[in-house]
Amino acid sequence: MNARIAPPLRAAALAFLVLSVTLPALAETDPLPSWNEGPVKARIVAFVRAVTEPGGKDFVPPAKRIAVFDNDGTLWAEQPMYFQLAFAIDRVRALAPRHPEWRRKQPFKAAIEGDMKALAASGEHGLIELVLASHAGNTEGEFAQIVRDWVKTARHPRFQRPYTELTFAPMRELLDYLRANGFRTWIVSGGGVEFLRVVAEELYGVPPEQVIGSSVRTRYELRDGKPAIVRLPEIDFIDDKAGKPVGIHKFIGRRPIAAFGNSDGDFQMLEWTTSAPGVRLGLILHHDDAAREFAYDRKSAFGRLDRALDETGRRGWTVVSMKNDWTRVFADTRTAPR
Amino acid sequence: MNARIAPPLRAAALAFLVLSVTLPALAETDPLPSWNEGPVKARIVAFVRAVTEPGGKDFVPPAKRIAVFDNDGTLWAEQPMYFQLAFAIDRVRALAPRHPEWRRKQPFKAAIEGDMKALAASGEHGLIELVLASHAGNTEGEFAQIVRDWVKTARHPRFQRPYTELTFAPMRELLDYLRANGFRTWIVSGGGVEFLRVVAEELYGVPPEQVIGSSVRTRYELRDGKPAIVRLPEIDFIDDKAGKPVGIHKFIGRRPIAAFGNSDGDFQMLEWTTSAPGVRLGLILHHDDAAREFAYDRKSAFGRLDRALDETGRRGWTVVSMKNDWTRVFADTRTAPR
Repeated sequence: MNARIAPPLRAAALAFLVLSVTLPALAETDPLPSWNEGPVKARIVAFVRAVTEPGGKDFVPPAKRIAVFDNDGTLWAEQPMYFQLAFAIDRVRALAPRHPEWRRKQPFKAAIEGDMKALAASGEHGLIELVLASHAGNTEGEFAQIVRDWVKTARHPRFQRPYTELTFAPMRELLDYLRANGFRTWIVSGGGVEFLRVVAEELYGVPPEQVIGSSVRTRYELRDGKPAIVRLPEIDFIDDKAGKPVGIHKFIGRRPIAAFGNSDGDFQMLEWTTSAPGVRLGLILHHDDAAREFAYDRKSAFGRLDRALDETGRRGWTVVSMKNDWTRVFADTRTAPR
Repeated sequence: MNARIAPPLRAAALAFLVLSVTLPALAETDPLPSWNEGPVKARIVAFVRAVTEPGGKDFVPPAKRIAVFDNDGTLWAEQPMYFQLAFAIDRVRALAPRHPEWRRKQPFKAAIEGDMKALAASGEHGLIELVLASHAGNTEGEFAQIVRDWVKTARHPRFQRPYTELTFAPMRELLDYLRANGFRTWIVSGGGVEFLRVVAEELYGVPPEQVIGSSVRTRYELRDGKPAIVRLPEIDFIDDKAGKPVGIHKFIGRRPIAAFGNSDGDFQMLEWTTSAPGVRLGLILHHDDAAREFAYDRKSAFGRLDRALDETGRRGWTVVSMKNDWTRVFADTRTAPR
């Protein structure tokens, strides 16, 4: 130590030395331990390095490091049905005593009786009708409380665990890894935004304002003299397929540089993200792991992956094999691994 | 310096000393130099201290420190007309050769001829018609470029300066001050979101994803094989009056703790913000400075302040007198004071 260096400079130099010892140690820790080594993991890491390397030809400033994630089937399981549909069915059953007409009317009859075949036969229109009837009429605060209560008690039929324990550990690592590299991570889901916002922060570290989803119209009004946002039984926005880039534009106002999905519902989101100039990452999660989760693609009622699978090659998208690329599937507990 | 202290600890201690010398010096700098000392400034500072004091009874975690700002008349001038209306008029004139029918049809005729009285007489419906016709049909990228080009050349009729130089220096200091205290700052404007997003980051340090505004519907489509977001001549959302809390709920999904406005169009936003439990800040900017900017309130065609002015007292809102509370009005240049 040179005693002639002024104390503040000496302090700075020492601080720098301390940091120099610490940082490489941190850097050596694998940020994606649930991902097997291989081309997929290498592709993700190479992308992040490329866009974060200061002065590099592919550098992207942090404000533009936008990464968008589908939720159902991408961040958590979606079989045997979307978790929000399970919620809607439970809501219809809870509300049924006030709606005797539902016992004779589809799709409500099917929901009450648990007739999944009849429910599926009611099609997209039927499902939307179910969701609107079961999700509306209350205020934003009341609805959020209903979701919180449901999430605590509902169990997945096969795994007999709360739905919130069925998030994918590797994807949660990926969210953390991107955020640690200056990305802002957004969820862009076909599911209901007010449903998702209740769980997204705790499960994924994604705050409500970074969740985009389908929505009902709302109205601001005074209820007993108190201001309230009331949820109406009308569709405001369907955030699926070509709706996803529309939602991204509406809410973010910038084109993402990375997109993560698992079905044809994510096709346009990946197309919009990866067709812009510059280094881009498009990733399709392929559910091919019947033992640890589910195996489905082209013929699935929920999360059908067909066109997006065919076009990965020519579009430069990366297919993740759940079976081969992941060392584990589910995050162990509600808050792990964060 | 005790030589027996291990080098890393000594470094940390020295670093701490350096920081201790620097931080109080920073803290003594007035973060709001364009605000005169007085009850208004004291109220703002007391609010920020209350919600940021760790362990304090009014502490709010950073994730919930949401502050919402109206734009026209709150962050920049709005007289003699909303700047975006000036843009719409210029657009109508530019597009007029392709629309000969506009020369005989209101409100287009009025816009082309600069007949402001006839334009005002066309009412809200007429103005919306004008905006839809002049703002739609192009892609998001084309529209943003048109706005960028216009902003460079347009001049305010009285001040003969670019509109972008007519932002309010004290409000920009306030934005910076809140962000320095862990707030996220949002713009919640009746103006068009795609117009505002072009300028908000540079002018206010507010990124596109934190701008909420009125919008037209958009559609995702392939144009010559390239993905595009196309702007349609249909209203998607009007972010004004009771629409403001709806927009806040839609985009942020959390209730703000501070709201800043200047007109009755901001009434519900302030009501929604300040009627929740906990310490809240509601601020109404009163344009009472004809010499430096404009003086208007109850009878103004744009930015009418009537009911919101009457109710400030019983709602605990703070009225800012532009004349008395501000040492200066406009930010000197496009990027000052940031």
